[in-house]
Amino acid sequence: MSGNTFGNLFAVTNFGESHGPAIGCVIDGCPPGMALAATDIQPDLDRRRPGTSRHVTQRQEADQVEILSGVYEGRTTGTPICLLIRNTDQRSKDYSEIAQTFRPGHADYAYLQKYGLRDPRGGGRSSARMTAPMVAAGAVAKKWLRQAHGTEFRGCMQQLGDIPIPFEGWEYVPRNPFFAPVADVSHLEAYMDALRKSGDSCGARIRVMASGVPAGLGEPLFDKLDADIAFAMMGINAVKGVEIGSGFGVVTQRGSVHGDSLTPEGFATNHAGGVLGGISTGQDLEVSIAIKPTSSIITPRDTIDIQGQPTQVITKGRHDPCVGIRAAPIAEAMLALVVMEHALRQRAQNADVQPPLAAIPGARP
Amino acid sequence: MSGNTFGNLFAVTNFGESHGPAIGCVIDGCPPGMALAATDIQPDLDRRRPGTSRHVTQRQEADQVEILSGVYEGRTTGTPICLLIRNTDQRSKDYSEIAQTFRPGHADYAYLQKYGLRDPRGGGRSSARMTAPMVAAGAVAKKWLRQAHGTEFRGCMQQLGDIPIPFEGWEYVPRNPFFAPVADVSHLEAYMDALRKSGDSCGARIRVMASGVPAGLGEPLFDKLDADIAFAMMGINAVKGVEIGSGFGVVTQRGSVHGDSLTPEGFATNHAGGVLGGISTGQDLEVSIAIKPTSSIITPRDTIDIQGQPTQVITKGRHDPCVGIRAAPIAEAMLALVVMEHALRQRAQNADVQPPLAAIPGARP
Amino acid sequence: MSGNTFGNLFAVTNFGESHGPAIGCVIDGCPPGMALAATDIQPDLDRRRPGTSRHVTQRQEADQVEILSGVYEGRTTGTPICLLIRNTDQRSKDYSEIAQTFRPGHADYAYLQKYGLRDPRGGGRSSARMTAPMVAAGAVAKKWLRQAHGTEFRGCMQQLGDIPIPFEGWEYVPRNPFFAPVADVSHLEAYMDALRKSGDSCGARIRVMASGVPAGLGEPLFDKLDADIAFAMMGINAVKGVEIGSGFGVVTQRGSVHGDSLTPEGFATNHAGGVLGGISTGQDLEVSIAIKPTSSIITPRDTIDIQGQPTQVITKGRHDPCVGIRAAPIAEAMLALVVMEHALRQRAQNADVQPPLAAIPGARP
Amino acid sequence: MSGNTFGNLFAVTNFGESHGPAIGCVIDGCPPGMALAATDIQPDLDRRRPGTSRHVTQRQEADQVEILSGVYEGRTTGTPICLLIRNTDQRSKDYSEIAQTFRPGHADYAYLQKYGLRDPRGGGRSSARMTAPMVAAGAVAKKWLRQAHGTEFRGCMQQLGDIPIPFEGWEYVPRNPFFAPVADVSHLEAYMDALRKSGDSCGARIRVMASGVPAGLGEPLFDKLDADIAFAMMGINAVKGVEIGSGFGVVTQRGSVHGDSLTPEGFATNHAGGVLGGISTGQDLEVSIAIKPTSSIITPRDTIDIQGQPTQVITKGRHDPCVGIRAAPIAEAMLALVVMEHALRQRAQNADVQPPLAAIPGARP
Repeated sequence: MSGNTFGNLFAVTNFGESHGPAIGCVIDGCPPGMALAATDIQPDLDRRRPGTSRHVTQRQEADQVEILSGVYEGRTTGTPICLLIRNTDQRSKDYSEIAQTFRPGHADYAYLQKYGLRDPRGGGRSSARMTAPMVAAGAVAKKWLRQAHGTEFRGCMQQLGDIPIPFEGWEYVPRNPFFAPVADVSHLEAYMDALRKSGDSCGARIRVMASGVPAGLGEPLFDKLDADIAFAMMGINAVKGVEIGSGFGVVTQRGSVHGDSLTPEGFATNHAGGVLGGISTGQDLEVSIAIKPTSSIITPRDTIDIQGQPTQVITKGRHDPCVGIRAAPIAEAMLALVVMEHALRQRAQNADVQPPLAAIPGARP
Repeated sequence: MSGNTFGNLFAVTNFGESHGPAIGCVIDGCPPGMALAATDIQPDLDRRRPGTSRHVTQRQEADQVEILSGVYEGRTTGTPICLLIRNTDQRSKDYSEIAQTFRPGHADYAYLQKYGLRDPRGGGRSSARMTAPMVAAGAVAKKWLRQAHGTEFRGCMQQLGDIPIPFEGWEYVPRNPFFAPVADVSHLEAYMDALRKSGDSCGARIRVMASGVPAGLGEPLFDKLDADIAFAMMGINAVKGVEIGSGFGVVTQRGSVHGDSLTPEGFATNHAGGVLGGISTGQDLEVSIAIKPTSSIITPRDTIDIQGQPTQVITKGRHDPCVGIRAAPIAEAMLALVVMEHALRQRAQNADVQPPLAAIPGARP
Repeated sequence: MSGNTFGNLFAVTNFGESHGPAIGCVIDGCPPGMALAATDIQPDLDRRRPGTSRHVTQRQEADQVEILSGVYEGRTTGTPICLLIRNTDQRSKDYSEIAQTFRPGHADYAYLQKYGLRDPRGGGRSSARMTAPMVAAGAVAKKWLRQAHGTEFRGCMQQLGDIPIPFEGWEYVPRNPFFAPVADVSHLEAYMDALRKSGDSCGARIRVMASGVPAGLGEPLFDKLDADIAFAMMGINAVKGVEIGSGFGVVTQRGSVHGDSLTPEGFATNHAGGVLGGISTGQDLEVSIAIKPTSSIITPRDTIDIQGQPTQVITKGRHDPCVGIRAAPIAEAMLALVVMEHALRQRAQNADVQPPLAAIPGARP
Repeated sequence: MSGNTFGNLFAVTNFGESHGPAIGCVIDGCPPGMALAATDIQPDLDRRRPGTSRHVTQRQEADQVEILSGVYEGRTTGTPICLLIRNTDQRSKDYSEIAQTFRPGHADYAYLQKYGLRDPRGGGRSSARMTAPMVAAGAVAKKWLRQAHGTEFRGCMQQLGDIPIPFEGWEYVPRNPFFAPVADVSHLEAYMDALRKSGDSCGARIRVMASGVPAGLGEPLFDKLDADIAFAMMGINAVKGVEIGSGFGVVTQRGSVHGDSLTPEGFATNHAGGVLGGISTGQDLEVSIAIKPTSSIITPRDTIDIQGQPTQVITKGRHDPCVGIRAAPIAEAMLALVVMEHALRQRAQNADVQPPLAAIPGARP
């Protein structure tokens, strides 16, 4: 609980505001000797980057990452890695009006009550732009986990507003701007076009998973692996719900159905979502999150101004009509930070452990 | 991320196992000068205690709390408060069989992979018995928050297995063994009787809320108030899903509906569940959690033994057929620990803040 | 910086007061599978225990440790280890007078200003009695480090008030009540007898060292190994100065003398005290601390009472005339906690590291 | 114990290497609403800056600080403040030879054993250059503490190698390049000129103090105010000893002398150095540190190379012959970070405390 730092052994400190000169993060605790260059990080930043389709904000940011420290002759040194991303396409004049009122569903009011002042330019610190450094840090964790354990992270959209999206295959995800695991996204495009025309916004449901997670990660009581996953997911802007494995589906499951049978060939099912008693089982981590509709919309809303008088607010400027569209790489990154933290922690406490039974394979759902 | 300690300024370190000599916790950071006695803590422990109806485990534990430190002449001194609860009704011989195999859906396998050994008696550290010290610590936080801010915490059951439970009123909750907010629970009793007879278990959905939470609690980026709530809830045994406010309902909401309008008389609605941008708004905190069915059932399940050979397991001994039945006071306690932590943190950083606008009332849903 | 918890990966939370029912600690992070019983801990507690000679406080405490959790069938399980020591020889009526005034050099005044109230019985939380749980936790760390790395910790007295004590050999330390590394302690006994008769107290200088410390422990910037050692030592009651290696002697050393030459056979000297750039070199850790004279003396002192009026204070009751006499095992324990924390941390970040050069032996001074 | 972050409520994360593109820090937890500009920070950076006299390293760095985040319209927003300092005068070719061997007394060997590789350019992360961001962060803490409590921090040199420096007055400190509190420094200049000519280096003793520190700061057991001071001081490069108040002088003091008498007009003396029982008394904080001689000297030293073969090393390049000369502003900054952390923590836990007795003035020594 230290504010803007995520993790302890792989500690990522995030800084910046939407319209300040730069955003970035400092990663403290990356193991030494790993090859690392900006090219390892840029692809994930590009997946999250704004302005890449008509369905997201039209702010143009190259999101070029610069490594300021912690790498020598192309290898991590074990010392802090500072990653810097310059902001380049701020249009702060768009926000003069917003400074005088509070958008329903936005952090405006809460920030003012907390701090007594706020940076209204692009939402300041509350902007989803802060997720770019999360993605950058996650890319470093992903690389280490891939090399050390063969862990892979994947995310996709499960529902866009009213439209459920069936799972046809991971190969479709990079082929459309929605991270949708389906071949044909024309109905999603039509849905978004109508939504933008209506001046409104919508929510989304995102699935994120990890395969190749070693068994044994997570602490039994508070720092359960799934507790940290929930913490990480709810730390992403606009997330209002988190599920592990069967999630809210467990309410109506019987114990005789929910518990995943073990066989010598592996787990038969994965209702657990990869975690039992807060500790990874070797099954895939399966996580689902709910993302709320954007509060910055041009539909007029009832609100009050900073003198407490009733008024209406319309939010102009450039905004995502569905922040869920770009959320998959963010959720992957945060999941990677959680797994990384626990992978290092597991070495600290249990490096010598030799379980009497070899780990069985985890069922893929 | 420090294992068995929850919080930082109000840090609660939990210890013990189901069948060890004692369980308990150390609370570090309680403000000095507050009147505190075991009688402030015992009522919540009694609400959570096993053996109080035929629908829960028949283990008989008085769960009498002893204050070992941190209180002088009936007042907190500002130094660590150690709370001790002796275990009195262990029956460890019940578990000799379980030590040789893994219960599907139980932490057995994950613990062995993590630690190389495990305490099989009553689930050892993975037992829901560990929630008793959480409840004890929560009672201390509740008392302080009530006196300092008038904050109140309440929890109830929303669904028991297949049966949704409508909300009729908080006054019904203490009158039945299910924490159900309804006058008549005969159908719940019949459901549980049939479930027990079938040798199976079921899940539940629990609602927990806090009123009188000051605006401004929570950190903007990672240590969001709702992120810490999600962390706290998922830290409770058997929880697989967490929702804040409208939760997964936000997926199909439009922005023009989701954002809670502000009026001079207060928020018009509470889809936010009391948190915007990770910071409390003064609205009620509204949280919903999914609790999975117990894995310890007498229905035979396919599994493997610790030599990796296929076998079947039946769990005898005394177990809750639905751990959700006793979960409401646990969820209240964990929510109280989160609010307490952030209330203290808010004083640290923002004690001098004078927002230009007085806080508006929070809408009750 | 979390109050009453020392360490992060091997986190020891200390609780209790001098005249409360019990004192103790919770150790979170001990690796699983280590044989552990009270008999591993009791010998160090016995070395620190009061009432064992006429030169220390006559309070009679058996300091019997009870393991409440974290051990199953004689082995650590990887879950929190709670160690409890019951207080048995409180005489709280001795302190009624002290509650009305402030002892010069004692924490009385600072506690009242901090907390607004204080427990005057035996100094409450500020009592040196709180070092017993430190010693107990240190014994667990010592055992693990001995098995894992062959690390050994030793402490002795270097000066008692005005009397410097030459180093004749470690074998003498356990043979006298002063932890003095000399064969003949009759002059120390005479010195203490005269001091007690005079109703005054004196300071001491203690040396503590560790051999068999692997190279590479410690973080480069803030969490330097020597910074954590200084933190640990200054965390012991009454310590006012800490030196590593040559300590304040470095002020007059030339660089050409201070820097320890490296040879294929090892370091030629040990001015560094085992730490360079905050990281262990494999040389012995060498630490020296200054312990102030006890403030609880029967010599009358000028002071004020809690109404702010001038008065005099004489402290009766049972007190150590030189707390340094029992300090060696405490300093050993705290040094062991520091090394343990960094040994685990080193595994987390650098478990895979293969330095191009094998570690050279560390010089013994 | 989190590596490169100092503090928890006022958390400063430091990054960078001597010859990387930039160094800097992120401050998390600065209270909102404080006027802050680079001009508040630059003066302290200028006091520490290299190249300002012939007695320090001739590396020319402007050390211009850039505020990248956390400030809006000239005021802190309560969100992370990133401070960046570009490196401009690296001469990395100077270090090619050093990469093949280990300087006695330098971190070279320890880094290689820890990380398996090291950045030899200017000492990489182990360079005293890393103290520049400490000074920058300290300037922010100083400003807040001055406004909130009237706290002032001052440092000076007490001894340069063999030459003790009497205290004539704080007004002399800024008038000479040694931070010496004396009118005439010609003998110090002559001493340094001779030292440089000899190709050797020397140690120093530095005093740092704070006045206007409120009573009540510090936690009783481990996070004592003086323990954190010792941690902070020993975290500065080259420090090998720390004293609080009378320091090692307490060894020969009697209790009747050491304990500072309290009078209605204040403390009569300040042997405590401002801390009793780990908690501030309102007296001045008085700290003294020992700084070892620089290891990078042109006098040839016996050592081994990275193949383990015996060799000799001479360190060319630009180095401080006495790093103690520039240490006063660094020690002030670290002391300010400690006081800041505890000032915020005190608000968190004890904001409501009303001690029965008004604080008495602290004696100035």
